[in-house]
Amino acid sequence: MLKTRVISALVGVILLIAVVCSGQMVLGTAVFFVSMLAMYEYFRSLTNAGYRPVKAVGYISCAAVLFLSWSEVLKNSFFQQIISLKSLLFAVFAMIVVLFSFIIFLHGKYNIVDISLTFFGVFYITFLLSFIVLTRNLKSGFLFVWLIFIGAFSTDTMAYFSGLFFGKHKLMPAISPKKTVEGAIGGVIGCALATFLYGLYLNKSGSIEFIPYFHFFVMGILCGIISQIGDWAASAIKRYVKVKDFGSIMPGHGGALDRFDSILFTAPVVYFYLSWII
Amino acid sequence: MLKTRVISALVGVILLIAVVCSGQMVLGTAVFFVSMLAMYEYFRSLTNAGYRPVKAVGYISCAAVLFLSWSEVLKNSFFQQIISLKSLLFAVFAMIVVLFSFIIFLHGKYNIVDISLTFFGVFYITFLLSFIVLTRNLKSGFLFVWLIFIGAFSTDTMAYFSGLFFGKHKLMPAISPKKTVEGAIGGVIGCALATFLYGLYLNKSGSIEFIPYFHFFVMGILCGIISQIGDWAASAIKRYVKVKDFGSIMPGHGGALDRFDSILFTAPVVYFYLSWII
Repeated sequence: MLKTRVISALVGVILLIAVVCSGQMVLGTAVFFVSMLAMYEYFRSLTNAGYRPVKAVGYISCAAVLFLSWSEVLKNSFFQQIISLKSLLFAVFAMIVVLFSFIIFLHGKYNIVDISLTFFGVFYITFLLSFIVLTRNLKSGFLFVWLIFIGAFSTDTMAYFSGLFFGKHKLMPAISPKKTVEGAIGGVIGCALATFLYGLYLNKSGSIEFIPYFHFFVMGILCGIISQIGDWAASAIKRYVKVKDFGSIMPGHGGALDRFDSILFTAPVVYFYLSWII
Repeated sequence: MLKTRVISALVGVILLIAVVCSGQMVLGTAVFFVSMLAMYEYFRSLTNAGYRPVKAVGYISCAAVLFLSWSEVLKNSFFQQIISLKSLLFAVFAMIVVLFSFIIFLHGKYNIVDISLTFFGVFYITFLLSFIVLTRNLKSGFLFVWLIFIGAFSTDTMAYFSGLFFGKHKLMPAISPKKTVEGAIGGVIGCALATFLYGLYLNKSGSIEFIPYFHFFVMGILCGIISQIGDWAASAIKRYVKVKDFGSIMPGHGGALDRFDSILFTAPVVYFYLSWII
């Protein structure tokens, strides 16, 4: 099982490097496909639990990821004019109207719970994943976007090994029976170290203007915490809808949503930290 | 019953005029209280149906209405600096994290359905009501904000009387057994006439730069349609959670959410029409 996981992870990482290095538009398109897949898995798990999410609304929302990415690449184009605070507000309003139409005109088939789960899913998946694209769109975003993945993967990996070697005290048996306090702490420390090392590389290579090292530490600690919250959040949903994994696209890792559960949360943290604090 | 309704409506309208005329900050504060009350009613109806919305998150979200209103009045103040696209995105992200914390750390008490209903409620109530404040913040907003109320009330009233006199064909028996096609059409026509008359007053009084009359007609038609969608949306929720009214604060009209169900939807329509088209 560990062997499958490792091989699968290696393939995933190679794919990720290839995608990120292929440029902004390829990354945006890849994030779009991930969001579609994650949305599919989220909806499927809800459907299995007896709910009726409005799938079309969820899938259409994923187009926002493409818009965000392409509008930045194709400067001054049609796309870019569309993207603004006001059109974002309008899109949310339109989504509310469309969702309500389902419980009005298809009353009996859909109810307020179904449309709320759909609406929440759009924010949980499309909205959070958009921060990968937003981070990539920042100045030196090509270099900074890695922090999102390094943050999530180093936490995952270090939490796993810290738990394996030092794990004694159960953390949250109701959701993830195997998680330990020692694992969680190890995840945060591991993440801080990993982002620090990446910061060392960035500063030494001279590819960015110098950023004080404590920023990378702080980002690492924040990512180490939020990354695990992302992990537990997905577990809490899975436990409620009674599935072990959201999917099976990555052998040993489950579905796209299982693999991206932490990234969903590290992406906004990295984005806000970079654009507000640094 | 009709007498109670009329007296109650008159008191409401006088109160509304007093509030809107008392200026921006009073209106913002009033919208804040309405959003708190509507949130309370929404949560209570869900609780009665067996769900456990995260009430604190809903109530805290209402502060956004105050922020929006006061930041505009107290120019260059602390509030105004806080309000931006980025802080809006951050607030949504923070809300997602907080809500997930409830299903992680209080697993068994709360679940994904509860937090989705809470999240949707914040957008249904706080977000939609904010458009009253946003419209008031527009240039000549003091005059334009009336379109929101005129749009909703004229539709309601005209739909009621058209239905009473001409109603034959049932519109949506599953949600609102008394609603008729004739009533709905009458509502739209009545709304278009009312907004046209208000436009006539605005143009003739010279209090605004001239706006072609067809804009008032179009706004009226849009408000007449969306206003009824708002009405039916609230009915669909009420039918699902099995309550007749959300509350009883206005004799003959029900609760705040019963009275504002249409306004929730006319507010964004008026705002987007004014700020995009005119």
